[in-house]
Formats: sequence, structure tokens, C-alpha cells
Amino acid sequence: MSIRFDGTNLLDRMVGAHGISPRDIAEGEPAAVAALGRFHARVEAGDYGFPHLPFDDATVKEIRRYADSVRGGFDTVCVVGIGGSALGAWALDCALRGPHPVQPAFTVKNPRLVILDNVDPSFVLGALDSMNPKKTLVVVIAKSGATAETVAAFLIVREWLEKALGRKASGRIVAVTSENRGDLKPLAVREGYTTFHLPENVGGRFSVLSAVGLVPAALAGFDIRKICRGAAAMTSVCWKPERAVNPALDAAIHHWLVWTLRGKNIQVAFPYANRLWGLAFWFRQLWAESLGKKHDRAGNVVHVGQTPVAALGTTDQHSQVQLYMEGPNDKVYSFWTVKKFAKPGRIPKGKVGFESMDYLPGQTLERLLDAERRATAAALTEASRPNCVYEVDKLDEEHVGGLLQLFEFQTAILGELLDIDAFDQEGVELGKKFTFALMGRKGQQEHVERFQAYERRRSG
Amino acid sequence: MSIRFDGTNLLDRMVGAHGISPRDIAEGEPAAVAALGRFHARVEAGDYGFPHLPFDDATVKEIRRYADSVRGGFDTVCVVGIGGSALGAWALDCALRGPHPVQPAFTVKNPRLVILDNVDPSFVLGALDSMNPKKTLVVVIAKSGATAETVAAFLIVREWLEKALGRKASGRIVAVTSENRGDLKPLAVREGYTTFHLPENVGGRFSVLSAVGLVPAALAGFDIRKICRGAAAMTSVCWKPERAVNPALDAAIHHWLVWTLRGKNIQVAFPYANRLWGLAFWFRQLWAESLGKKHDRAGNVVHVGQTPVAALGTTDQHSQVQLYMEGPNDKVYSFWTVKKFAKPGRIPKGKVGFESMDYLPGQTLERLLDAERRATAAALTEASRPNCVYEVDKLDEEHVGGLLQLFEFQTAILGELLDIDAFDQEGVELGKKFTFALMGRKGQQEHVERFQAYERRRSG
Repeated sequence: MSIRFDGTNLLDRMVGAHGISPRDIAEGEPAAVAALGRFHARVEAGDYGFPHLPFDDATVKEIRRYADSVRGGFDTVCVVGIGGSALGAWALDCALRGPHPVQPAFTVKNPRLVILDNVDPSFVLGALDSMNPKKTLVVVIAKSGATAETVAAFLIVREWLEKALGRKASGRIVAVTSENRGDLKPLAVREGYTTFHLPENVGGRFSVLSAVGLVPAALAGFDIRKICRGAAAMTSVCWKPERAVNPALDAAIHHWLVWTLRGKNIQVAFPYANRLWGLAFWFRQLWAESLGKKHDRAGNVVHVGQTPVAALGTTDQHSQVQLYMEGPNDKVYSFWTVKKFAKPGRIPKGKVGFESMDYLPGQTLERLLDAERRATAAALTEASRPNCVYEVDKLDEEHVGGLLQLFEFQTAILGELLDIDAFDQEGVELGKKFTFALMGRKGQQEHVERFQAYERRRSG
Repeated sequence: MSIRFDGTNLLDRMVGAHGISPRDIAEGEPAAVAALGRFHARVEAGDYGFPHLPFDDATVKEIRRYADSVRGGFDTVCVVGIGGSALGAWALDCALRGPHPVQPAFTVKNPRLVILDNVDPSFVLGALDSMNPKKTLVVVIAKSGATAETVAAFLIVREWLEKALGRKASGRIVAVTSENRGDLKPLAVREGYTTFHLPENVGGRFSVLSAVGLVPAALAGFDIRKICRGAAAMTSVCWKPERAVNPALDAAIHHWLVWTLRGKNIQVAFPYANRLWGLAFWFRQLWAESLGKKHDRAGNVVHVGQTPVAALGTTDQHSQVQLYMEGPNDKVYSFWTVKKFAKPGRIPKGKVGFESMDYLPGQTLERLLDAERRATAAALTEASRPNCVYEVDKLDEEHVGGLLQLFEFQTAILGELLDIDAFDQEGVELGKKFTFALMGRKGQQEHVERFQAYERRRSG
């Protein structure tokens, strides 16, 4: 497995005053190494668990045993979950089998994933119409167990399953949840669902290599041992305190400097591979929720955050690059590239008869994709827009596992550098409370009144 | 058809110093009305053609006649195009049939769209593997005709079609291009492809209601008369110089003020409907390419632009809202909501036995989705984050046509207010030239040398 970070186009010699200098990097390195050390201490203390996940062979074995035991009985795995309970499974599925709608036909030997990560009725009911309940395995995922969207969608899916299967429905439901918190666990025990747990010290957005991501992946037929092997190898590298060998540390230093010294408040995750599109959305959550914070650890109000944007190359060259080239110089661009595709995509040799087309025959899509990415990087650089590259050799289980773990480490190190808690998400609580109030959940009187006061202000 | 804009939560009485005042709006209104007038004069002069598109009954009739003549002979419409030649078709398909993978099964009566808008070899080859060339109609779309990605993908698709159909392949190819520019038109004439044109004064991102969007839509089975009827009704409203009756004018004023007076440099397009996800990506191009500019019309360097971000409710409440609530107050949030879904999605009545879940049974997904949106808006407002709402009554052809046209007018008016040319895209030229140079197209010596110089700088 080989994944490289290249920060050359972040340097001031490439992008002038919008870049950082080798001296900035040299001066920042000790702080980053110290941040890695603090993070290591917190992991050792048991505060954060994601670095241990790829080494949890027992869980991998248990999940594989379960997947083997049910394989062949379903052509669809329906994941009911949202946010961190959905994005990891999508990222893995998209990376390893390609995006919809160009996946191979689904069969009991190659079951598709349908991820119900919203409560839009037309989406949920459309999904049910597209599935056969007798050939569907349902995986409901919620760490806390009480996420409104997940519960609501699950109750509908469960009824749909029970109508077709009667009491056997319970045998087609898997729950992934906290062992000791929330009501999904006792519900699963009461109903006899197969259950997997995720460690208490692993939050949703860091949970892709726990049962949260690995159960759907194993059921879809991916080799989760290889995913974990790649992530484990990357973990070993990510603990090293030298940026020359640790791409997470090197990338964290660069991003920290270009963000805080040069004020680049937008992070464009720019994969040049359709298979990395799901991973870009997974990254978007990781980056936004981990690094968007009101307070630092000392309690100061900081309102820090770098807004992640997902763009797809080359597609978004024809949508977003006009803005990237000419708009405000407020972004850093991270290209994600794949060195080698399974097939290069040969363009037929015969000349077309027009100069505007005849440079292409005989070349390959792989080469064109790479040329487009390098051309876009060069153009952004000439426009003084800082950009960098993450390159993976190929897209297989090991590299995808490694890439996920690299991004998690990079995020954790940046959180330490910013002196914020990258692992909480206090900011979403108020919206949840207002939702409970509007939906008539008990004990929400304070937020019922607060919402009414808001509505009165709206009326002027 | 009814589409409403609600800017209440942009007001300073709701979000304090991050909002705008009724006085700001009253003072801004004459400028916006004047901008609308200037835009009208340019349209009358023939500079910009998109407002005329929904009234072009002859083109609609011609497209419908063609679609009727070929219907039944294919189960897949393969669109080869990128940027403005792809996003409109996706926006319409997603809005009217739902997102992949939950669309109904595709048949010759309900052909699916597969949109090849990239040159990733694994994506293009995967798409070909998923289609039957004997049941596929190919629509190649390129205004200029020489877009590298489109030509490369098309040559591969054409060969795939010819291998299966021999000389009959030409009868299964439709070209949409400029009548008088570029080489796709002469190629189509030579090969005998069915051809549709788009007006010269309609750019890619404003072309969804030309043959560019309507040919794929008609082939997919949508009633393009209704789409145009909704867009025509919206057009009539959008020419009115009173913001009380013109939602595009009203929205443009609000966005102009909150952007330029309050420095909100990020525009979050936040649909609460999976079917509007494609439209959010179409909007992202419209907003980024039209309003991201280096120069104003007087030639001053301005580097203006508001970065569009697509977020999906409720899904991204569990991914992005932590950042939106607590991060930098640098965004304006535009909720896109649907008042009524085809079915409400009833949550089964039986109690589950846990307080954390038992407020949901008997309610509907439609109600929960609406509550989540209102709760999120209230929470953002309490955090002084300006937000607004676009509400459509329902998602049908008329409303989707109306919404597309509303956003195009809003963008055009904003361009005039900012005194920029919202209809060019000079910023992408350099990247295209570098790509040509790297791919060995003739006559690119200047950019070959310029790229080599860049590479030398990289080597330090």
C-alpha cells in the first residue's frame, strides 16, 4: 500500500503570498509533533478509540462469521442510518464497486447496498418499492439509538419486512449500536435482532472501521480483513513523529499553516475518480464536524472551522473551476488522485477527421484524466491558488482503508493544533431539541416555548 | 404553480448584526429593479436567450415528435456531456423520478438516464458494462463540439455501439450542439446522426430548457410541455419590477445585500428533498460559474464570487450542521422545501415501548422532515446565522420548470447588480490549454513551454 501527500503547490515559491514557506513548515513542525504526542496520550488514556479499530481482529472475525452465515439469502442490504452511521458504508461501497447507477447488476452473490439516510417520504417509499422484502437484509445503525430519522425510517422498514415475512422478520434485522447506551440495544435484545456494538470511545464520524462500516461492507461482500490491514499499516505510519514518513502529520502541518496563516477558510476535496465521490462526502462530515467549533479547549469563543466542499474531477472543472480560478482566493484545493485504474480506457485509434478531436484517438481515458488534473493544478497555481495532492496507487481494499485512516489522523492532529475538541458535536443539540418539541416528544416544554418565541419574532 | 421566497430569517430582527434591515432592502430595491431593466434590455438586444427558451414551442414540438418516433426501442438513454451539458438532464431526472438507486426498474417504457459526465475509465467502462448497446440510445451534447472529455467518452461509446450494431449505430446517436460552431455539427451531418441545436446566445449553464435538457428529458418520458409551461409562467413573473410579486427579484435583492453588506461568502443550497439533490448540483454550476469572476464590466480586478455548497436535509444535519452552527458566520443558508409529497410516509402506529421512540408512531415522514427543517432554521437563527426559504408546493414538471427559471433569473439579476458578466467563463481557458498541451494537440507550443516552466518551478 502506498499513499503520498504532495504539498509543493502550497509553497510560496509556487503561489506567492498565498502560500507558505519552508520556514513556516520548519517552525510549525514541532507544534504538530507535539499535537500528535498529545493525541497519542489521549488515545492511550482511552479517550478516543479510532486508532485501535483496525487491530480489532476479534470483531472482524465475528462480523465475517455472521456475513458468511447469511450470505446467499438476500440481494439487497438496506442500511438504515444517518451521518456517521451511513457515510462510511457509502464511501466503502462507492470506492470498491463504483457509484450508482453504474454498479454491476445486483444478485444474491453481489448484493447491493441501499442506504436510507433521510426521511424524505418519496425517497424512503421509493427505496422500499425498489427492494424485495424477502431478499433484503436490514442493518439499522445508531450509536445512541434514538436518532429521530433513523427510528422513523426503521419503524417503516420493519413494518414492510414484517408484512412480507411475519415473525421471521426479526431474523432479517441487524442492529449496530452502543452496548450500554440508548434504546436500540434493549429493543434489539427484546426482538431478537443480531447485534453488533461499537466502542463507546468511537464517535460516528470516526466509526467506519468499527461494526458501523464493516458490517455493511462484509454483507456487501468486501474483504474487511484487507480494509483493516490497509488501515492498520497506515496507523503505524501515522504515529511516527517525522513528517517525511507520516503523510497525516505532513498534511496536517500544511493544512494548518495555509488555513491559519493564509486564511483559506474553504477546503475543496477534489477527487479525480468517481469511486472516491462517496469518500469525499464521508470526509466532508469528518472535517466539518470535527473542526467546526465555537469554543477552544480553554473555553474561549473562537468560531473556528474550514468549510469542506466536495468537487469531482474532471466533472467539476466544467462547473466550479471558473470560480476557483477567478473568485476570492479563499480556498485550499486537495486533489485526490489514483495512479492506476484497473483498465485504462483506450480511446479507439481511428482518426475522426477533425483537428479538434484527432489528438485523442489511440490515447487513454486514464491519461486524459491525469492530464486534466495536472493541467487544473497548474492553472490554479498560476492563479496563486494553493493546492496539494493525495495520491493512492490504486483503489483496492488496502488503499481505501489506508486513506480513511490517514484522513482521520490528519483531522485529529489538526484538532490538537487548533486546541479544540475534534470529537464532540454540541452544535447540533439545539436543532434536535426543537425537532423533539415540534414532534411532541415528552419533556420538551422549554424548547416548545423557545420555538414559539422564535415564531413570534418571525411574525414581527 | 406556486413558488415562494421567504427572507424573514435574513433580517436583523432575527439574526442581529449578521442580518439586513428593511431599510437596506428598501434602499437596495431600486438598484435591483434597474438591474432587471438592464438585463431585460440585453435580452431584447439578443445577447442572452435563456428567457425565451420556454416559449419556443416549435423546438418542443420537434423534440417530442422525435422522442415519440423512437420510443420503445431502448431501455437506456446514455447522455455523453459534461457541466452544463449534463447537469440539467440530471436535475430533471432526479426531480421527476427520484435519485439513483431508488428509481423504478428501467424498461423500454421507462428508460433510465445514464449520464457520462467524466472520463474516469472505471466509471465509463462500468457504465458500458451496465448497458445493453442494442437497447441504448446515445445523446452526445457539446455546444462547442470539441470538449475533450465529451469527445473522448463519445469515441469509446460510439465504438461500443458500432461493435453491436454495425452501420445501424448512427441511427442510435443524437447530437445536440451549436448549429454553426465547432466540429460536432459537421461530424453529425457526415455520419447521419439526428441533430438538435441550441441557440448561440444560450450558454451551457443556462441551457436546461433548450434541446440540451429537453432531449434527454423527452426521451426519458417526461412531459417537456409541462416543464416549459411552468418555466414560462415563472418567466412572466420574473420580468415584473416589483419584488412583492417577483420571487427572483426579491431573492436577488436579499442575497446581494447579505453577501455584499454582511460578507457571507458561502451560499448553502439546502434542499429538504432527495429529488432536489440533482438540482442543487445544477444550481452549484449556475452560481459558481456565473458569479465567480476576476473582473467587473469596467475591467477592474474584483475577484468576486460566493462559493455554493450543496447540503441535503435532513441528512447533512448529521454531517454539516455542527459547522454551520458553530463555525465562522460566513454563510447564508437557502432552504429548498417541498410543501406536499405524493405520499406522506406514515410511521406505523404501534408503540415501541421506549420513550425515546414513542413520540413518532402515527406521525408521518413528511411531518418529521418539515419539523427538522424548521428546527434547523430556528437553531441557525438563534445562532445569528442568516437563512431563507424557497418553497414549492409540490415536485412536478411545472414546479421544477419554474424553479429552474427562477434561479436563472435570480443569477442574471445578481450579475447585473455586481456589474459583472454572468454569462462568460474565461477562467477555465488556461486549464483547457494545458490539457491540450499535455495531450499533444497541435498548435499548443506556447502552453507546452508554459507547463514545462511550471514543472521546473515545482522541482525547485
